Amino acid sequence: MDRRKFFRNGSLFTMGAALANPFESTAHIFNAGNLHKNKKAKNIIFMVADGMSTGTLNMADLYINRKLGRSSNWINLYKQQRSSRALMDTASASSIVTDSSAGSSSWGGGHRVNNGVLNIGPDGEHYMPIWQKFKKAGKKAGCVTTVPITHATPAGFCVNNDSRNAQEDIAQEYLRLGFDIMMGGGDDYFNADHREDKKDMYTEYKAKGWNIVRDRTAMMGVGNDKPVLGIFSKNGMAYSLDRANDKELEKTVPTLAEMTQKAIDHMKGHKNGFVLQVEGGKVDWGAHSNDIGALLYDMVAFDDAIKVAIDFAEQDTETLVIITTDHGNANPGIIYGKQANSNFDSLQEYKHTNEWILNQIKPTDSVSTVREIIESGTGKNTVTEEEAKFILSHYTGQFGKEGGLYNYNKLPFEAFAEMQKKHTSVGWISMDHSADYVELTMFGPGSEQLKPFVKNTDLHYMMLQAAEVENKF
Amino acid sequence: MDRRKFFRNGSLFTMGAALANPFESTAHIFNAGNLHKNKKAKNIIFMVADGMSTGTLNMADLYINRKLGRSSNWINLYKQQRSSRALMDTASASSIVTDSSAGSSSWGGGHRVNNGVLNIGPDGEHYMPIWQKFKKAGKKAGCVTTVPITHATPAGFCVNNDSRNAQEDIAQEYLRLGFDIMMGGGDDYFNADHREDKKDMYTEYKAKGWNIVRDRTAMMGVGNDKPVLGIFSKNGMAYSLDRANDKELEKTVPTLAEMTQKAIDHMKGHKNGFVLQVEGGKVDWGAHSNDIGALLYDMVAFDDAIKVAIDFAEQDTETLVIITTDHGNANPGIIYGKQANSNFDSLQEYKHTNEWILNQIKPTDSVSTVREIIESGTGKNTVTEEEAKFILSHYTGQFGKEGGLYNYNKLPFEAFAEMQKKHTSVGWISMDHSADYVELTMFGPGSEQLKPFVKNTDLHYMMLQAAEVENKF
Ligand SMILES: [Zn+2]
Ligand SMILES: [Zn+2]
Repeated sequence: MDRRKFFRNGSLFTMGAALANPFESTAHIFNAGNLHKNKKAKNIIFMVADGMSTGTLNMADLYINRKLGRSSNWINLYKQQRSSRALMDTASASSIVTDSSAGSSSWGGGHRVNNGVLNIGPDGEHYMPIWQKFKKAGKKAGCVTTVPITHATPAGFCVNNDSRNAQEDIAQEYLRLGFDIMMGGGDDYFNADHREDKKDMYTEYKAKGWNIVRDRTAMMGVGNDKPVLGIFSKNGMAYSLDRANDKELEKTVPTLAEMTQKAIDHMKGHKNGFVLQVEGGKVDWGAHSNDIGALLYDMVAFDDAIKVAIDFAEQDTETLVIITTDHGNANPGIIYGKQANSNFDSLQEYKHTNEWILNQIKPTDSVSTVREIIESGTGKNTVTEEEAKFILSHYTGQFGKEGGLYNYNKLPFEAFAEMQKKHTSVGWISMDHSADYVELTMFGPGSEQLKPFVKNTDLHYMMLQAAEVENKF
Repeated sequence: MDRRKFFRNGSLFTMGAALANPFESTAHIFNAGNLHKNKKAKNIIFMVADGMSTGTLNMADLYINRKLGRSSNWINLYKQQRSSRALMDTASASSIVTDSSAGSSSWGGGHRVNNGVLNIGPDGEHYMPIWQKFKKAGKKAGCVTTVPITHATPAGFCVNNDSRNAQEDIAQEYLRLGFDIMMGGGDDYFNADHREDKKDMYTEYKAKGWNIVRDRTAMMGVGNDKPVLGIFSKNGMAYSLDRANDKELEKTVPTLAEMTQKAIDHMKGHKNGFVLQVEGGKVDWGAHSNDIGALLYDMVAFDDAIKVAIDFAEQDTETLVIITTDHGNANPGIIYGKQANSNFDSLQEYKHTNEWILNQIKPTDSVSTVREIIESGTGKNTVTEEEAKFILSHYTGQFGKEGGLYNYNKLPFEAFAEMQKKHTSVGWISMDHSADYVELTMFGPGSEQLKPFVKNTDLHYMMLQAAEVENKF
């Protein structure tokens, strides 16, 4: 096999360059135990904390440190020198600030595309998504996420489409292409009652031999003999913080870590290996809503999934784990001030996200009811009467309603976040993505090839190279 | 010499641990050419872009890429794999969000102290600042900065003081302790006309054999035989953007890169080597003011100074260069949107900082004059009549004046930045420091010891170790 075929021309990762590198033989320095050197990655687990700014990674680690007295699993990889690290430039073809479809396409197709598009170039070029390449190479392939499984980040590894919004079509594409385990939210795009075309995708998946699981118990019990479609919510799945304080949700809806474990167990016996994408998709939604409880606890849940992946990879020794984000979002950070520590620690008392809180409020509520609802969610009474009145005015129509991505119920997220800032010491630059270079780390065979600064597209070729899969499509 | 004495007990950097590390022999992977392996760092250049968030590093690189078609010198170190990198936890003893005195003290004294303090512990312990340790070891030592040379970041490497605000005392301490080249702003703390005690520090420095330089030409011409005090402005030095568009300032005031070059040239002939701190101090002030032109162009000026340091170190081969920041500030970032690219590129047309613009406005100005002043500074007419009126109201007393750190003239920085955001696509979380983990890179001998995640205090011991200076004080 011509090893050069792994890589497109001019890529950073041409074998020629790698062989000519005088440090090639020492390139494993940051990999524990030198276990992975020159090993092929039979399996790849690609983990995306969607929309994770530097401050999001930092706040999750600080929260875990201050609450549990240990480091986050992500930062612990660094403290123990077990992974390689890079900064990644996340731009798309159309902007220095990417959206999630162009972001995932850069990894999935190896080319930058315009925002909003899935693996189709500005001149209509179709780039074969990487999970299709790995399927053709004989591997099993799957995705798990906390947003609809048809959402931009999983879709970018699986399909070509002019629009990320074509989620009903994407549900059909997954079936046509044939993946092995696809789990997350998104009943809206599978259920005949919600689809525009009234097709029952569950019946179609079943007819093609898939097992369908609709809750946590069913997921836990499903066999490994057939492909699995797991759909656990109408649209996005519940935020981790709300799930943790709702016994019904805890029973019926799996965590990202549990879905990750299930997907690994489902595919790990395959003789040619497997590839799995794991997305903490609601980290991004929390940032879009400036919803600190949502963001922080979903980032912690993503960190729990990291442990599942690393524990497996460590035992397995043939698995490359890539952990990163597609772009920053809202650049949250803890702000200087005498109360910074205690304000940040007050997040430990949160019982619910702002989304949950704001969804409880009705136009007919009294000001004191509004204050009680907020207290029940945040663990203390933090809004003044004036502030409660202002929040209420967004429901009664006295004040215009807020819009914003994923704000389906037009809740006053921005107004509430602004009030919350003085109690949490956490600020936000906006309710949208940022151009910041982002954190990226790799563990296992292939991680020794990581350079300190990469473009998002480089990861496509690194994955093929690590798995020694020819890039012939 | 007992090499263990380099390091405090329990440090990450005990030689025992280093020798026991099975990867020790491969630890130079990210250093170009393996030149530095096992070499001692005769010289150290410690560079601080004060208050630099991830987005600040990112915006400077994007600006340089889009304007000049090359990478920033900082990012280029990564692209060329010439330096090692880490994330750094910047907390102080009193807070997860540090100020610059506790930040510099962590490096300078090797211990976390309370915010506002210079190398004195919560129980009164005095920690010897690292430039004193290096002086005792026979090296020359200096600092250059764009803020007063008596400011927190240089002071944290040089002195002990209960308060960073004691800048007049710090000016005397530098003289008493005896450093070799100290340059920046701060006439307020040396000039008899401005000091509370009416002492003329220039006369005192001269009496002790120092050369005093008060402008760029004098600095360029000063000899290397005596210590140098260079004071180029009343308080902080002019922002780089304002300097670049003011012929008088260009002639009289040196750039950070020029001061860096001078300081290196001044000390490089010394047989026992030298240590130099280089601070882009006004990067922090720009962030405190949410002043995008100030922040961006001072970050670019800092990047120019990086080139000076790296060019020297590369030739010299015995110089460790450390490049980092003490903490994030305001977490600026470019925000998603159709106009993100063109808005960000409009900063290329800026002629002046917001500080310069807002200082031109007088309470008696008309609304159209206000708009003209803003246009002359930003290159286009971006404020509406309503907005210009609102700005003016901060001068006429109709609207309360803004405060804020380093906002000596009570200018309406926040109001103006809020208007500017829609034209630049750059947002801010606040006007103060953040707890974000920050970027750190090292080049040269000793850089191979850098671990992927460090505490700010670790750098103190790494410097001593790299230079093989015993920590006996
Ligand atoms: Zn998003
Ligand atoms: Zn500051």
